Amino acid sequence: MPIKAIVFDAYGTLYDVASVGAAIDAVFPGRADIVTAIWRMKQLEYSWLRTMMGRWEDFRSVTRDSLRYTLDTLGLTPDAPTVERLVAAQDRLSPYPEAEPALAALSGYRLAILSNGSQAMLDALVAHSGLGRYLEAVISVDPAQAFKPDPRAYTLVQQRLGVAPAEVAFVTGNGFDTAGAGSFGFNVVRVERVATDALRQELSAPTPGPAAMFRALRLGLEGIGFEPARVVSSLAGLPEAIRGM
Amino acid sequence: MPIKAIVFDAYGTLYDVASVGAAIDAVFPGRADIVTAIWRMKQLEYSWLRTMMGRWEDFRSVTRDSLRYTLDTLGLTPDAPTVERLVAAQDRLSPYPEAEPALAALSGYRLAILSNGSQAMLDALVAHSGLGRYLEAVISVDPAQAFKPDPRAYTLVQQRLGVAPAEVAFVTGNGFDTAGAGSFGFNVVRVERVATDALRQELSAPTPGPAAMFRALRLGLEGIGFEPARVVSSLAGLPEAIRGM
Repeated sequence: MPIKAIVFDAYGTLYDVASVGAAIDAVFPGRADIVTAIWRMKQLEYSWLRTMMGRWEDFRSVTRDSLRYTLDTLGLTPDAPTVERLVAAQDRLSPYPEAEPALAALSGYRLAILSNGSQAMLDALVAHSGLGRYLEAVISVDPAQAFKPDPRAYTLVQQRLGVAPAEVAFVTGNGFDTAGAGSFGFNVVRVERVATDALRQELSAPTPGPAAMFRALRLGLEGIGFEPARVVSSLAGLPEAIRGM
Repeated sequence: MPIKAIVFDAYGTLYDVASVGAAIDAVFPGRADIVTAIWRMKQLEYSWLRTMMGRWEDFRSVTRDSLRYTLDTLGLTPDAPTVERLVAAQDRLSPYPEAEPALAALSGYRLAILSNGSQAMLDALVAHSGLGRYLEAVISVDPAQAFKPDPRAYTLVQQRLGVAPAEVAFVTGNGFDTAGAGSFGFNVVRVERVATDALRQELSAPTPGPAAMFRALRLGLEGIGFEPARVVSSLAGLPEAIRGM
């Protein structure tokens, strides 16, 4: 079937989650790497655990809880307004520089986001970055009350856009999302932002730090048996990859 | 309701998963810390992702896949028999030294294991360690085709032992399991093996290594809203904690 819609993951795919590092560093000088690594690991873990436990809460809540876990584990004790400021920084992440040109080049397709983010988080993110003009729909998993890679989350694309999974190219930089979207039946384009050899080099250091551990744990292609249809090293490669599908 | 049965998690609760480190170090000298940290992180992640995706495979398979991911990420290329030997080392983990005395002291209760491990893995583990004589049942999540913390896994206790959740004391050293068992309705005894202050001290190093990152990510009390009924620092504290319930 021909590709009719291109659906993007948000965090780590269109938007650079590392751009929250400056906000963290301003509050906890020199600790941005370890705070970011633990926060992001636990943020997704909590989304998965809550989905499995049948105890869904939205991504804003999961983001706040995982930040609190992180700061408590590290013995950092900010006041409540500081915690809220860091949580709100997720609404002003920078898009990757090649995101806007890629969306512009793909304007012949129906374009949308499907993200774990709450609708409020995503609306703020899209408005702040100006990417909204390219997008037909900004779909939060909220109505499914399940986070990716639960199939109930991916089903929302069909419900909102009226396209079959085989008509969708799903673009993601996240390993778990590559597996989940592939298992669901989407044509997956994986954005592989860290080259395998560069990561292996980094991990061969005597003591790889928190940022390297994060990359080792979350940026690889998961061994769960669902391979992407295409792999690109940045969103700039997307128009050519989509033409070939 | 009075406690009738005490149900134990296996990996990280009765059995010391770090005891596989020697086998790893023999194959990859000096890399045991990082191999163990990534392997264990991905092993549980894969169990969660497969449960959410509706793509269940047993824990032996998940254990093998996560080891392969780990070695590939690190650029380590053992032959297939070496991979199988490391996977099989999970069947010979050492029990914590205080596990057997604690089980002996609690022999007035019905005692069982509920673990993510496959039945074959658990049977081998229990036989090798000699703890089987204390246990009425060794329950694998296999029949549920769902891993903890999915409630379908915890339901197996009621099916096998015929006890209500409120009659069960569930003992675990794992944060996700504390949350899942608490959410299910068990009385949870958390084994907190790493003291908060010691971990904070370790994480304040300029570059905390993989083992410290693992402890930061997996040994804390999760911020998902389900508190344990009791906390002990080792299994030695269990008889007293159970008497007080």
